[in-house]
Amino acid sequence: MRAELKKDAIKKRCSRAGSLCLLSSHLIHFDISTMAPRASIVLYYDIVSPYSYFGFNLLKRYRQQWKDVDVVLQPAFLAGLMSTAKNQPPATVAAKGAYMFADLNNVSAASGIPFKFPSEFPVLTIQTMRLLIVLQRHEADKYEQCIEKLYEEYWCNDKNVSQKDILISALTPIIGSEAKVEEYYEMTGQKEIKQALIDNTQTAFEAGAFGMPTFIVKKAGSDEEHMFFGSDRFELMASVLELPYYGLAPNPAAKL
Amino acid sequence: MRAELKKDAIKKRCSRAGSLCLLSSHLIHFDISTMAPRASIVLYYDIVSPYSYFGFNLLKRYRQQWKDVDVVLQPAFLAGLMSTAKNQPPATVAAKGAYMFADLNNVSAASGIPFKFPSEFPVLTIQTMRLLIVLQRHEADKYEQCIEKLYEEYWCNDKNVSQKDILISALTPIIGSEAKVEEYYEMTGQKEIKQALIDNTQTAFEAGAFGMPTFIVKKAGSDEEHMFFGSDRFELMASVLELPYYGLAPNPAAKL
Repeated sequence: MRAELKKDAIKKRCSRAGSLCLLSSHLIHFDISTMAPRASIVLYYDIVSPYSYFGFNLLKRYRQQWKDVDVVLQPAFLAGLMSTAKNQPPATVAAKGAYMFADLNNVSAASGIPFKFPSEFPVLTIQTMRLLIVLQRHEADKYEQCIEKLYEEYWCNDKNVSQKDILISALTPIIGSEAKVEEYYEMTGQKEIKQALIDNTQTAFEAGAFGMPTFIVKKAGSDEEHMFFGSDRFELMASVLELPYYGLAPNPAAKL
Repeated sequence: MRAELKKDAIKKRCSRAGSLCLLSSHLIHFDISTMAPRASIVLYYDIVSPYSYFGFNLLKRYRQQWKDVDVVLQPAFLAGLMSTAKNQPPATVAAKGAYMFADLNNVSAASGIPFKFPSEFPVLTIQTMRLLIVLQRHEADKYEQCIEKLYEEYWCNDKNVSQKDILISALTPIIGSEAKVEEYYEMTGQKEIKQALIDNTQTAFEAGAFGMPTFIVKKAGSDEEHMFFGSDRFELMASVLELPYYGLAPNPAAKL
């Protein structure tokens, strides 16, 4: 019974990847053409992006409501993406910058997600995002908690999460060992980790992204990609996914 | 009884303007300090702006739900505003332009508001917006219907509403006389009308606008202005106004 469940779980996972799977040393072939993939949302995020902070928190809430949607959280590098897309930060237009401050506070008030603009902004998050790639690979079970913590430190607690000491002290309670976090931080220097962040950012760009948060949405049973930009597109995602939209605060109990 | 009602209506209108009013040749002084103004939304729009088209249509729907909110529709000139604010159209960033097309179709699908990107875009709507100023002044009762018609002609029927002949034939059935519409069109050359469009645009800029649609929202009893940009801010406006948000299609029967 347990073996069957496990087999089903692996089958399910493999059907998403559309691949062949090795299970208990038996090579199993799936006819992927007849297996409809589940709906999915891939979020490309950078800790430096305030709307990504809201986008991440809203996605966490919506995942509770949209139970049949797989969620993938992909670290990417906003400054690199904007440069590739030849895009400019909103605040380069004075009125847009001023509006953004008011708008972020309005989003916070309407969603119940706490928010305080940090005293240092923007900060260079390239190391932060490389570290999140390392954590995604080596601490899969704690990866999401790490994202949440770093967002909270920067966008609520005014901690400069581009600094090594801030990262170490923020993540140590989650990972359980300062030495281990130090070790992960050292791994950000590896060529492969650097390249993974470049690759994620390039993949986002190729999917049409020019800023963050970017959501790549696929309906169940379809490989067509729908790209959404901004923390304010959940109602449109709901429409594309043919799922209900519950508002910015879908579950009052989930309010932070 | 009728006189009293009329008096009340004028009193109400005057309380909004915070002014002295002449009623039936009696000068009436109101103590405006004790009269709470009603909630209000001022929309600055330009026919050339696709998100203003959605913003206008959504505002029309929301006005049915938010009955205690006064609505004012102010013609403004988008190209002038963007130049004053030193802002660039989204499509100057290639990926942003491509995204905008998909996003507009998603907004249309989610809201049920029909939409077809016109073959000529952008077009120079300075005459169109001046004409709407004339209509606002001389055809107050039909003004909103004229806006609706011009939006529909441009954003559903691929009619170039910057052209005089298109404007005349679109508006004649509403105004009831081609000669009258011709006369209104001639009035767009008046210095005062030209200046009114400049003034509206400048007022929007001074309120923080850098694009359209721009909504200036005031809560009942307050003079504080809350500025919102985009057709996607109704949920935030609802939060500020402490009114319910019903989604992009609040009233299924209102679907166009």
